[in-house]
Amino acid sequence: MQLTVYLAGQIHDDWRNELIQKAEQMNLPLQFVSPMTNHSRSDAIGEEILGEQPTKIVKDDKASDFNNLRTEILMAKSDVVLAFFGDSYKQWNTAMDASTALAHNKPLILVRDESLHHALKELSNKATATVENFDQALKALSYVFETE
Amino acid sequence: MQLTVYLAGQIHDDWRNELIQKAEQMNLPLQFVSPMTNHSRSDAIGEEILGEQPTKIVKDDKASDFNNLRTEILMAKSDVVLAFFGDSYKQWNTAMDASTALAHNKPLILVRDESLHHALKELSNKATATVENFDQALKALSYVFETE
Amino acid sequence: MQLTVYLAGQIHDDWRNELIQKAEQMNLPLQFVSPMTNHSRSDAIGEEILGEQPTKIVKDDKASDFNNLRTEILMAKSDVVLAFFGDSYKQWNTAMDASTALAHNKPLILVRDESLHHALKELSNKATATVENFDQALKALSYVFETE
Amino acid sequence: MQLTVYLAGQIHDDWRNELIQKAEQMNLPLQFVSPMTNHSRSDAIGEEILGEQPTKIVKDDKASDFNNLRTEILMAKSDVVLAFFGDSYKQWNTAMDASTALAHNKPLILVRDESLHHALKELSNKATATVENFDQALKALSYVFETE
Amino acid sequence: MQLTVYLAGQIHDDWRNELIQKAEQMNLPLQFVSPMTNHSRSDAIGEEILGEQPTKIVKDDKASDFNNLRTEILMAKSDVVLAFFGDSYKQWNTAMDASTALAHNKPLILVRDESLHHALKELSNKATATVENFDQALKALSYVFETE
Amino acid sequence: MQLTVYLAGQIHDDWRNELIQKAEQMNLPLQFVSPMTNHSRSDAIGEEILGEQPTKIVKDDKASDFNNLRTEILMAKSDVVLAFFGDSYKQWNTAMDASTALAHNKPLILVRDESLHHALKELSNKATATVENFDQALKALSYVFETE
Amino acid sequence: MQLTVYLAGQIHDDWRNELIQKAEQMNLPLQFVSPMTNHSRSDAIGEEILGEQPTKIVKDDKASDFNNLRTEILMAKSDVVLAFFGDSYKQWNTAMDASTALAHNKPLILVRDESLHHALKELSNKATATVENFDQALKALSYVFETE
Amino acid sequence: MQLTVYLAGQIHDDWRNELIQKAEQMNLPLQFVSPMTNHSRSDAIGEEILGEQPTKIVKDDKASDFNNLRTEILMAKSDVVLAFFGDSYKQWNTAMDASTALAHNKPLILVRDESLHHALKELSNKATATVENFDQALKALSYVFETE
Repeated sequence: MQLTVYLAGQIHDDWRNELIQKAEQMNLPLQFVSPMTNHSRSDAIGEEILGEQPTKIVKDDKASDFNNLRTEILMAKSDVVLAFFGDSYKQWNTAMDASTALAHNKPLILVRDESLHHALKELSNKATATVENFDQALKALSYVFETE
Repeated sequence: MQLTVYLAGQIHDDWRNELIQKAEQMNLPLQFVSPMTNHSRSDAIGEEILGEQPTKIVKDDKASDFNNLRTEILMAKSDVVLAFFGDSYKQWNTAMDASTALAHNKPLILVRDESLHHALKELSNKATATVENFDQALKALSYVFETE
Repeated sequence: MQLTVYLAGQIHDDWRNELIQKAEQMNLPLQFVSPMTNHSRSDAIGEEILGEQPTKIVKDDKASDFNNLRTEILMAKSDVVLAFFGDSYKQWNTAMDASTALAHNKPLILVRDESLHHALKELSNKATATVENFDQALKALSYVFETE
Repeated sequence: MQLTVYLAGQIHDDWRNELIQKAEQMNLPLQFVSPMTNHSRSDAIGEEILGEQPTKIVKDDKASDFNNLRTEILMAKSDVVLAFFGDSYKQWNTAMDASTALAHNKPLILVRDESLHHALKELSNKATATVENFDQALKALSYVFETE
Repeated sequence: MQLTVYLAGQIHDDWRNELIQKAEQMNLPLQFVSPMTNHSRSDAIGEEILGEQPTKIVKDDKASDFNNLRTEILMAKSDVVLAFFGDSYKQWNTAMDASTALAHNKPLILVRDESLHHALKELSNKATATVENFDQALKALSYVFETE
Repeated sequence: MQLTVYLAGQIHDDWRNELIQKAEQMNLPLQFVSPMTNHSRSDAIGEEILGEQPTKIVKDDKASDFNNLRTEILMAKSDVVLAFFGDSYKQWNTAMDASTALAHNKPLILVRDESLHHALKELSNKATATVENFDQALKALSYVFETE
Repeated sequence: MQLTVYLAGQIHDDWRNELIQKAEQMNLPLQFVSPMTNHSRSDAIGEEILGEQPTKIVKDDKASDFNNLRTEILMAKSDVVLAFFGDSYKQWNTAMDASTALAHNKPLILVRDESLHHALKELSNKATATVENFDQALKALSYVFETE
Repeated sequence: MQLTVYLAGQIHDDWRNELIQKAEQMNLPLQFVSPMTNHSRSDAIGEEILGEQPTKIVKDDKASDFNNLRTEILMAKSDVVLAFFGDSYKQWNTAMDASTALAHNKPLILVRDESLHHALKELSNKATATVENFDQALKALSYVFETE
């Protein structure tokens, strides 16, 4: 049995690779899928596909068409969603992906530093599990496969 | 025909009363429901009901039990969700309520200043309608009832 | 028992009033809801609420935000959808509303002249009932209440 | 990971082969499924299977039995629906397939020339993404698999 | 609290009136809805609304359009379905209505003489409750309201 | 706005009346519904309606037909489920009703003494809110209506 | 692409083997699943597994436990349901399986001789496609795979 | 065709291995998944992953996060749930898993000694099949694959 994990969260730094490398070291039967993590490309994908747009807001709206398309397709293929909240950025996308997963009965692992607990308390309360870092998240995923 | 509107968003200032008064002046057949808007009570409701908790995180977790209970009951009674994002605060709750509404096929009006568009672009793209202020939101709700 | 009927279809002429008057003459316990039937207002509602938009396409897109909001709210309140296809116009909206109703287990009465049968054959095949004019549609609705 | 794409749209010309060949040139891990694209056979399939029918309308109705059977089976197997609207024909089938996909939470790429935007504005507004030609549609699908 | 009960079953004799009169004598807060119980009208409703049809099978098919419309609307309004199977007739409609109710999480009371148990064993096994006559069915409905 | 509350739990003592009286003293706009709380009647309802059964197990099975019918009808009418676990009895019914509510997106208040936490930890973790006594449960319900 | 087909219908004669052999001759990529077609074993499976039961009705009820278990597991694995109605027997099981499939959005091919149309008219009207014999049913399934 | 079976039930003794060995002897094409059956690890998993917790209740709550995560992921992968109730322990988890399976239309085999029938009568009544021991449960699963 292999599980597919959607990695929701900001795309400003390299946290997914860090997590994926740790998972590989643990030999977990996991396949990871993600939003486009090249941030400038993610912002520009609307104009890349459709050409120049009349305003910055329309440019954003078109980019989100393709980012949402990607997320919806890949999340439907996933068995579990891992949503990471960091210190910076609005991360409303992350909250949207996490909440959408829960509403569709898709299990959710929330990863956030303890310092963020207050602002995330209602979402953390609905999440299947909340942890504080990637090592803990991977232990949680590993636990699904362990038998003793 | 009367509609019930859930007002999702931060509870640090008095924006809901402002909106409700405008709605009353327009004589719209709307009933508004909200989370607990007394902020300190919302944070303390876990200990108010259950007594002192061992840590601040557990206190938060218990408060969110009752805040989520309230939101789930009232959102199920609502015909449409209005979610307001302002300049301040994390507002991950707001993103959670907005996304949950969409995932349950509940129409969503997103209210946010244009300056917030970039961070909200994927959620705005999924929302039924996005507006920039309360007057526009009420015009949108009024439009549902108008016949010419 | 009263039923609410959503009247899907083009908004270029006065067919809904004709149908509603016939229904009133038959004293049927029906409440009708509709999209905005003032066509120029329906097209302009995006700019009416949000102000001038940069292109005609964005203007259209914003108008459809509020038209979809209205349709989603009112269709959720309806017990049955009546979708009328006429000779003119693309009427893709009508096909969208009719198909959405069916996919959400909402009964659908399709009204179309026999001459349109070929192009509508797959949708007619999925509709709960297909009739050729408003008198027949109202007889179908009346039949729901009759006991002998 | 391979995706299955349902190609909704008219069956009067050879647009699907054009699109599939472009996809093959891009080496995308896509499997395409479609309605019966032999138009005269699609119209005649009711009588081909069941024998002669009493009227043209019944002939149409029986053909649509088998066309709908095919569409329902293949769309359930698909991860994403691509719906193409051209200049000609009623294309109410296409609107039906596109709307059914959305109502069942199946991501939808709408392909239409900019000239058709007005008539498609409400459906385009609900689609996951709207593009203007097949190259753009394939870039959108390719984007789902790209990682940088 | 009042309950609406859909009375599924054959329409060849007067069993519904018998049951409704018993319910009235018991003063139960029940509202009953039914298919068209005038059998010849039920068979003719397609031609009554649409005019003469080319064959008996098409006549039947059109009648079933309006009978299914009525059933779908009224069953959606119901809190519980009572399905009665008697000695005569195919009663595949009854089995269809009963199974549809169960699949939509609508509670089902099956009424059948003990002599029919074998042929109904799989449906009876899925029904919420199975009884042998109308008095028992009404006791079951009365039990929902009783408090001691 | 009034809420309907289903009171799941054992029927060996009078806890529901105690809770309902407290609610009345608080003037909460709540309507309570319950399983049959007359225990011997609940056990005997199968034979009361259907007559003597061949074995004790069949007698039990028939009683549960009518108890499940009652629970399904009344829970579908409820806005929230309150499930009380006490010290005695197996209470597998209570766990069934609580879990069914959650799986159907019905908010759940779990009431249990702290001493039962370990055995209920997974269910408590999924419940919308967990409290230790009826006063706390009613405060939680009251909180839904309070505005300051 | 391979499809799994559930063959609903009576188990008194060998119609499934006839159909499966025809399918093999046509080289269709179909996998067929069925209820237990050994009729006496199907009736006796409750006592075979659980031992002697107190009455014939309880024996039937226990047999239907295992027959329903089999049907639910296999129908969930199926892409399409083929339901055959013949001249003899009550066949309420068949109507139940066919209706359950439709209610769960599983495409349904109804096979029945024209002589049975009247009694099956409402179910036939809801079926995805209705045919009169197995050759036609297999042509319908073959049509799903054909491309010209 | 292979089936995945989720084995719900207490984790105090070795019943799952006994059952799995019997299944292997019968050469059934079954894959079994389970909760963590190392009881002390199941209780400690919250602290194992997250570190020491402030109270025993919080420790329990955190353990249940990861136990529920595991159950939700594995049950979603399963075709059928087998829930075993024994003489000892509260087993509210087992009732929760069994009820959740039923509410999500996942077939359920309940295994319990006849002596437990009374307390389980309502859950047994809703289960797809109820048996008294593992041999019977495996015969029920074997029956799904048998063809004569």
